[in-house]
Amino acid sequence: MGNTIGTIYRFTIWGQSHAPEIGVTIEGLPAGTLIDRSKLQAFMDRRRPGGNRYSTARREGDEVFFAAGLNEASETVGAPLTAVIRNTNTRSSDYEELKYVPRPGHADYPAMVRFGGARDFAGGGQFSGRMTAPLCIAGGIALQLLEARGIRISARAVMIGGETEEERMLAAIDEARAEGDSVGGVVECVVENVPAGVGEPMFDGIENRIAQMVFGIPAVKGIEFGNGFACASLRGSENNDPYIFSEGRVQTRTNHAGGIYGGMTSGMPIVFRAAFKPTPSIAKEQDSIDMRTGEAVRLCVHGRHDPCIVPRAVPVVEAAAAAAVLDEMMMSEIHV
Amino acid sequence: MGNTIGTIYRFTIWGQSHAPEIGVTIEGLPAGTLIDRSKLQAFMDRRRPGGNRYSTARREGDEVFFAAGLNEASETVGAPLTAVIRNTNTRSSDYEELKYVPRPGHADYPAMVRFGGARDFAGGGQFSGRMTAPLCIAGGIALQLLEARGIRISARAVMIGGETEEERMLAAIDEARAEGDSVGGVVECVVENVPAGVGEPMFDGIENRIAQMVFGIPAVKGIEFGNGFACASLRGSENNDPYIFSEGRVQTRTNHAGGIYGGMTSGMPIVFRAAFKPTPSIAKEQDSIDMRTGEAVRLCVHGRHDPCIVPRAVPVVEAAAAAAVLDEMMMSEIHV
Amino acid sequence: MGNTIGTIYRFTIWGQSHAPEIGVTIEGLPAGTLIDRSKLQAFMDRRRPGGNRYSTARREGDEVFFAAGLNEASETVGAPLTAVIRNTNTRSSDYEELKYVPRPGHADYPAMVRFGGARDFAGGGQFSGRMTAPLCIAGGIALQLLEARGIRISARAVMIGGETEEERMLAAIDEARAEGDSVGGVVECVVENVPAGVGEPMFDGIENRIAQMVFGIPAVKGIEFGNGFACASLRGSENNDPYIFSEGRVQTRTNHAGGIYGGMTSGMPIVFRAAFKPTPSIAKEQDSIDMRTGEAVRLCVHGRHDPCIVPRAVPVVEAAAAAAVLDEMMMSEIHV
Amino acid sequence: MGNTIGTIYRFTIWGQSHAPEIGVTIEGLPAGTLIDRSKLQAFMDRRRPGGNRYSTARREGDEVFFAAGLNEASETVGAPLTAVIRNTNTRSSDYEELKYVPRPGHADYPAMVRFGGARDFAGGGQFSGRMTAPLCIAGGIALQLLEARGIRISARAVMIGGETEEERMLAAIDEARAEGDSVGGVVECVVENVPAGVGEPMFDGIENRIAQMVFGIPAVKGIEFGNGFACASLRGSENNDPYIFSEGRVQTRTNHAGGIYGGMTSGMPIVFRAAFKPTPSIAKEQDSIDMRTGEAVRLCVHGRHDPCIVPRAVPVVEAAAAAAVLDEMMMSEIHV
Repeated sequence: MGNTIGTIYRFTIWGQSHAPEIGVTIEGLPAGTLIDRSKLQAFMDRRRPGGNRYSTARREGDEVFFAAGLNEASETVGAPLTAVIRNTNTRSSDYEELKYVPRPGHADYPAMVRFGGARDFAGGGQFSGRMTAPLCIAGGIALQLLEARGIRISARAVMIGGETEEERMLAAIDEARAEGDSVGGVVECVVENVPAGVGEPMFDGIENRIAQMVFGIPAVKGIEFGNGFACASLRGSENNDPYIFSEGRVQTRTNHAGGIYGGMTSGMPIVFRAAFKPTPSIAKEQDSIDMRTGEAVRLCVHGRHDPCIVPRAVPVVEAAAAAAVLDEMMMSEIHV
Repeated sequence: MGNTIGTIYRFTIWGQSHAPEIGVTIEGLPAGTLIDRSKLQAFMDRRRPGGNRYSTARREGDEVFFAAGLNEASETVGAPLTAVIRNTNTRSSDYEELKYVPRPGHADYPAMVRFGGARDFAGGGQFSGRMTAPLCIAGGIALQLLEARGIRISARAVMIGGETEEERMLAAIDEARAEGDSVGGVVECVVENVPAGVGEPMFDGIENRIAQMVFGIPAVKGIEFGNGFACASLRGSENNDPYIFSEGRVQTRTNHAGGIYGGMTSGMPIVFRAAFKPTPSIAKEQDSIDMRTGEAVRLCVHGRHDPCIVPRAVPVVEAAAAAAVLDEMMMSEIHV
Repeated sequence: MGNTIGTIYRFTIWGQSHAPEIGVTIEGLPAGTLIDRSKLQAFMDRRRPGGNRYSTARREGDEVFFAAGLNEASETVGAPLTAVIRNTNTRSSDYEELKYVPRPGHADYPAMVRFGGARDFAGGGQFSGRMTAPLCIAGGIALQLLEARGIRISARAVMIGGETEEERMLAAIDEARAEGDSVGGVVECVVENVPAGVGEPMFDGIENRIAQMVFGIPAVKGIEFGNGFACASLRGSENNDPYIFSEGRVQTRTNHAGGIYGGMTSGMPIVFRAAFKPTPSIAKEQDSIDMRTGEAVRLCVHGRHDPCIVPRAVPVVEAAAAAAVLDEMMMSEIHV
Repeated sequence: MGNTIGTIYRFTIWGQSHAPEIGVTIEGLPAGTLIDRSKLQAFMDRRRPGGNRYSTARREGDEVFFAAGLNEASETVGAPLTAVIRNTNTRSSDYEELKYVPRPGHADYPAMVRFGGARDFAGGGQFSGRMTAPLCIAGGIALQLLEARGIRISARAVMIGGETEEERMLAAIDEARAEGDSVGGVVECVVENVPAGVGEPMFDGIENRIAQMVFGIPAVKGIEFGNGFACASLRGSENNDPYIFSEGRVQTRTNHAGGIYGGMTSGMPIVFRAAFKPTPSIAKEQDSIDMRTGEAVRLCVHGRHDPCIVPRAVPVVEAAAAAAVLDEMMMSEIHV
């Protein structure tokens, strides 16, 4: 369980940070869909490690290889699409000392309990942020299908280290790094032009499915749609969005609901925000335990880490939103 | 799609606000599980309409009838369990005028687009808060199974109408009602004693699954775990939870993660908060459109409504958490 | 697990032979679908116990009650459809003596091992042929949707007790009954007018899905498509179906494949046969064991039983085929 | 849809006959499971093309590469296991002429209709028998897990070209090949030592799941369990299996049911037979149509083909049975 998501546009992500390969297998792509491979690669590059000064020093080309499902004209053939990235720049030796000492804030301890000694702990194994690369393949392809339907998705950082103004956000990252520390932030994502009436009732609504997808991105600790948590301080008369007829179609004057009622789209932009915790890998010494002895130890996490993952998380959030929205659209289209 | 959730502890909720019956069919219950029916009914009563001064005037006994799956000793027989509530106090005439005029903040407009003229709009149809009653059956039974494993779940309102102190929260509801308005709030839920290592990777982790379930409760617009959105202003050194050995077991000194790393439990309490929007049904006049003509109309929502659903939502959040956590525990147990 | 089937046209069957109710909840029905209730009831009557001289003496009206999902005009509202049959004519006392003595040929012994003492053994519990009634509801509704697409399904008995001629088949049943015994048979089903290209690859093809559905009918022990087992004695040059262009469309000169290649339809009729074992409940004394002591006992099965279930199984096979084919058609339509 | 199967032991098969790679991703393997890689390779070799005189002339090493999910000690790490085979010996030119002329007995025509011009028709694309190689990986690993539980699976050809004696079966193949023709057959499979009570009710019983899996093997046109179609000529008193207490446990004197009642195991061996049609690729001229013009053409299928796939299908049937039975056992174990 866990690595597969989606009902029609359904995919399975596989791999670990330091496995020979990571990849994704996608079912549900209509046959004859043209994949713009250079556009996809450009999308991947926005997430790629080593791509900017705020990212890990690990260098990976993240070149996508299509193992199956695509013909020579880059069209889908109607079979599952398997896309693979080879891991090249792995330094597992960085992690040997962590086998018995869980890093605070990481999945190490629960993974020890759950998977025991055979688990792959190098680079965080299957819980590594590296696993967002195959998510970006599935989402990047979904983006292309959505674009063909006139749908646009764009995300951006709206807060980092408590700052909301762009230069100050970047400064917050630099400061944290200088101190061997890290910072968290919030990414906001907007999905435009989804028609009204998309989304399944109850547990498979737009909010349910985007949330399930977005919590699959490591470090996400919260999600809200439209007014979100601010709702708790509002009156119904303030929060409701009155209907108007404008530009030849039904709209709402405001969009406090983030484009969603009852799990279904209203035709207004879908708006959500995801909260990212500060990168748990920090250079500062931390308290942990040697699991063999139960003794307290002081831990220094070495290796190559982002002082803030938010900048690289921006395309990942877009990818997650795209994959969820495409699947919802495909589901909605069946019932007509 | 939409009405079924869960992998092992899997259930389908069916019904509409004014259908003859609403109910739930649960698969995955081990045979021979004793259901404490009076305890379940007491749990249902916490959510029941008409149960307190902050709820709708609709009166429903919400008595649970077991149509199948339970023997005379109230033990599960190994077949699906179907539990039914008969709708008795329906006043569909309240809704006739709303057939072509969508209520702001409700699912009316997307449902019109999606399901057309055949849809059941009386009382909100399948999007009614009434559908949380069968969720409470599924969750209330899950609570009993979890309790037998020593797990405790309790939720409470931590904010209503911007207030965080109990008397002031209640006052905020009274004021809103007096003004024909409504208020939103935040419910916090704590799940204690879940062992470490429960939760599937990536898309089926504790956060993903609780989020997918909780967004199935009408009016929820946000969810956060542990520090949640506050992470965006924190450093890694502040947010990480150092490991300590205490009371004979591995713990963390703080629990900023809300008991979850990499989607898996740490053994510390699971802590999450859900944001509820103000009840969209308000007595105040609002702007809407007559969908037959496209003309603007002023709408007054009559009928019987809660000025704040947060008090009645508290057991529903517990139910949602219970159903999700039980399913995760069952999944984790297979792989051993 | 077990009681839910289907991807788009998905349903869950619940109940036991002597539970208060049995029923089915169907998801995936397009909103606004008109259900012809009297036609459905007429279909149910073909399977109803007591309906003909070859069936059990148990009398049941099998009247279908729609608990949710249908409006007053008998149109689907876009929510799950729940249809219920009340069990009225139950005589559980017939079964008390069987609690510890498994009947040969029945699910009693495996159910004992699996579900233990809490199981519902009256009338075979969830393994009763009575559970085909809700399957006929799901299938009967599917038949109506298929008919609206011009698709026709009809099944008939082609062998009973080794006989293939109609009068002799009926005579074989009468003889078996006279001797306190029972007979098995084969039902053939033909599905006409399904367009070419319907069916998913590999594990969700037409054959896979019909087989999974049909083995859900108690007593089915085999299924074959087209030439089926006869293939084992044929050459490729005999078994292949040559393509011809006829009546303005692509056809095959023969239909040895039963209308299916690679799990997908060819546009020719889908043809399959299901083998039913003789009713295991017979009046003759049989050897069994008292599970409390391990001692051999001679068992006489009392109660009311069909000497041959094949006649009543005919509409059940149609129902199973309809539900599977409709789901496949809905899946195929998404990917266009 | 289509390429994924299983509930706990769940896998997705991907690739096409002439894609760069084919492979399988398996979820649900318990962490720390040791995979005997040379044993797996030996199992693969039983299916490998070019492995015996009855197989295609295509030569493939079919070496399994583990892209993820296995550590250096060949233990599963608790993440999905992805195993890959590189296609090396592809001769797509053999197929160019078939783009518009469907081969009788193959999936060509339905695939044309369904997937259009972008489909991969080389070597049968995703409908090729080559796709049973990844099925053998998933099944071969399942076999190892079952063996560790004391379960043994073995299949054998019991009929080829109408012959049931071994030498005559081989002769029938030789004769067919000499004439540019092909023959079909029947494979019987026995699964020993599965405990009683395994299997889910109704649609997820042992028969349902084995059938769904086995029809995933190209060329299978029928399946029967125990007495199967022979039931149609038997009386209940002949077909029922009386219970006896023997060797310290409950058994049945006969095993006409093939070890299954109500979809659940009885503790006796599971016995089933699968019917394989003759290889549709034959050297003899056949009638087909040029889809561009609708004109009749005489078609000669070139390329490299097995005159009878039954010998190579034997391990594939074992693999299918193993994967289905392991999944059922894992499901049964949860509910305890």
